[in-house]
Amino acid sequence: MRARVFFSVAEADPAVLQEATVVVIDVVRATTTMVEALAHGARGIYPTASIEEAVKLTASLGREDTLLCGERKGVKIEGFDLGNSPSEYAATVVSGKRLVMSTTNGTMAFSVTQESPRVLACAFTNLAAVATALRGTEDLVVLCAGWQERFSLDDALCAGHLLRKVLDQGGPEADLNDGAWAALSLSGALEPTLDFLEGTAAGRALEAIGLADDLAVCVDVDRHAVVPEMQDQALVATGG
Amino acid sequence: MRARVFFSVAEADPAVLQEATVVVIDVVRATTTMVEALAHGARGIYPTASIEEAVKLTASLGREDTLLCGERKGVKIEGFDLGNSPSEYAATVVSGKRLVMSTTNGTMAFSVTQESPRVLACAFTNLAAVATALRGTEDLVVLCAGWQERFSLDDALCAGHLLRKVLDQGGPEADLNDGAWAALSLSGALEPTLDFLEGTAAGRALEAIGLADDLAVCVDVDRHAVVPEMQDQALVATGG
Repeated sequence: MRARVFFSVAEADPAVLQEATVVVIDVVRATTTMVEALAHGARGIYPTASIEEAVKLTASLGREDTLLCGERKGVKIEGFDLGNSPSEYAATVVSGKRLVMSTTNGTMAFSVTQESPRVLACAFTNLAAVATALRGTEDLVVLCAGWQERFSLDDALCAGHLLRKVLDQGGPEADLNDGAWAALSLSGALEPTLDFLEGTAAGRALEAIGLADDLAVCVDVDRHAVVPEMQDQALVATGG
Repeated sequence: MRARVFFSVAEADPAVLQEATVVVIDVVRATTTMVEALAHGARGIYPTASIEEAVKLTASLGREDTLLCGERKGVKIEGFDLGNSPSEYAATVVSGKRLVMSTTNGTMAFSVTQESPRVLACAFTNLAAVATALRGTEDLVVLCAGWQERFSLDDALCAGHLLRKVLDQGGPEADLNDGAWAALSLSGALEPTLDFLEGTAAGRALEAIGLADDLAVCVDVDRHAVVPEMQDQALVATGG
């Protein structure tokens, strides 16, 4: 197989994305929250790049069973139903609902995957399930959302641990790009503990706005077996 | 001290660069070649972002003792005196000369450091000398040239090994960004061997254009004790 890891959206060549199965990772917090929402019965999640797009799409889907979700600078967008804390996405709130979501980095990453044949969302919380879903994949891109076009260690480490699981499933030797090689090396050196996450830029930023409680969920490895997969512009639950 | 590693020029915030000692790394091959040139007696190296700028600057410096150097797509620019192979920069060729140099990624990285109080060039070939030169630095940025705004593992590993040496010199605990943390982790997992470099994207690209022989120099750790430091738009030899 061919496996490439890109550490930010800026690194990802559109031509490469068009031909690959793409796994989007935004540990803190978009993909963690998406996994939580789908595990708790949400019907589908529509990632949108802008607030305007989110509002427009929600209006067209029908307001009655659609929740408007997202953050800017970590905080819930004014007038939206939910922010980006995984704990907000309890079954009582999201079950049976469609979610339209716009976050600073995570949902932006999905906007560059629109031509990709298969798109999944991964976090530490569904690592094993995503690895299983990737069995037989020939051409894999792991796209880290990063932070405003920059490297984020939490996403890079998640990419590395995912890749390690995928390669452990066997198959012919993998052709890795520099990012995949680096992510794999990181996964041999670092474990996704709460201490680890609290030390990252993303962890520190969340703590600074009083949302450090979210971090424990973000490193709760394999908490769920759901695999969010893109179908007709929405991520829906597959796997588990 | 505060230490930040950026894996590409795109990651580096201008405001951060303005206040820090910046170490530019482009292992394959710009900073390796610069170290070679200064170790072999070149008077100074003027990094320029564009070919046009290089030609213009050479004319203004005076053609008699100035060499026009650089590459595009790895190959010597037409009409230029030298390409970007370290082996071209022998003492017989460069001693006493001023070099104006334009490369795809490496010299580009210097163009964003123009407001920085101190700018050094580092490669595996002068790692220990640069670490020594950084003693007492409070605010350090290691700027990896990367490859066209993308992560390059060779530069990241060099950054990690440099940082490890700097931190080993002692001093108060360092405040690291995610990139610095990742680079340090990589330096614990990977060594700069020829095998390593041949497996990177940069190594493979060089092999593809028949220049694989350059790689042995690029991983010849501490081959020189010279520290290229920016003074009046030119990198000059300090240290060793």
